[in-house]
Amino acid sequence: MQLTRHTDFALRTLLYVGLQPEGERVSVTEIGRQFNMSHNHLIKVVHKLGSLGYLDTVRGKNGGVMLGKPAESIVIGQVVTDFETTLCPIDCEQVACPIAGSCQLFGVLNKATRAFMAVLNEYTLADFLKKPDFLMQRLLPSVEITEQAANHS
Amino acid sequence: MQLTRHTDFALRTLLYVGLQPEGERVSVTEIGRQFNMSHNHLIKVVHKLGSLGYLDTVRGKNGGVMLGKPAESIVIGQVVTDFETTLCPIDCEQVACPIAGSCQLFGVLNKATRAFMAVLNEYTLADFLKKPDFLMQRLLPSVEITEQAANHS
Repeated sequence: MQLTRHTDFALRTLLYVGLQPEGERVSVTEIGRQFNMSHNHLIKVVHKLGSLGYLDTVRGKNGGVMLGKPAESIVIGQVVTDFETTLCPIDCEQVACPIAGSCQLFGVLNKATRAFMAVLNEYTLADFLKKPDFLMQRLLPSVEITEQAANHS
Repeated sequence: MQLTRHTDFALRTLLYVGLQPEGERVSVTEIGRQFNMSHNHLIKVVHKLGSLGYLDTVRGKNGGVMLGKPAESIVIGQVVTDFETTLCPIDCEQVACPIAGSCQLFGVLNKATRAFMAVLNEYTLADFLKKPDFLMQRLLPSVEITEQAANHS
């Protein structure tokens, strides 16, 4: 049972952007290099995060992204809901099931999903940014990323 | 967020086998036709259900499968645990994350999964077999399946 790659990338992106000093923008390239994320997938994720108001995005040479709203108001469960293609643990229609609609198992699986989401709805992005220095020490320094980018250009 | 196809097939198989009159075996072909399941996948699922004791399997012309233990002792959460390849909602290693091990988000996602599993652990297969006639009416009669098989041979 796994969340999709897009949800994974969305959460990593918000975490990294949230770790930056207030008011500072970060490039999509830098986010991708930090977390080994496919640039093409990441572009889609960042676009969606922007359109949903999670990120404030500015294009161009001096552009980049920053949080679009306070970390305290970014509920993890809502991000997961926004990025998952479905929250039904089993798709009774994709492999058509003759007892779909009559089977109580579907209801129980959805009850379990609600319990899963209830936990995630208890947390906001701010809960994961409480030790920014501790986390930033584990990430590549921005200068190394800039050098990597220069070597690739 | 979805369970794997194998878990889906395992649950459908147990449900159908559990709906049969006590002591009666059912063929794997019949299970597959009822639920539109790929025969090759289903064979693997039935083999695993047998090796884990959920099914009692007999090969051959007069063979088939029946429950290997009482429906009351088949806990849905345990079946899901046995068939899912992972219960971690995000794989921090597959796309390597530099803050894996330091990031508290991983712990919260696992807490959510425990809440999901706790609900499934409250139910046994017997909970879903309480209206067998009601469910059986929605399935193909065995005679039709036998005819289908004859037409395909």
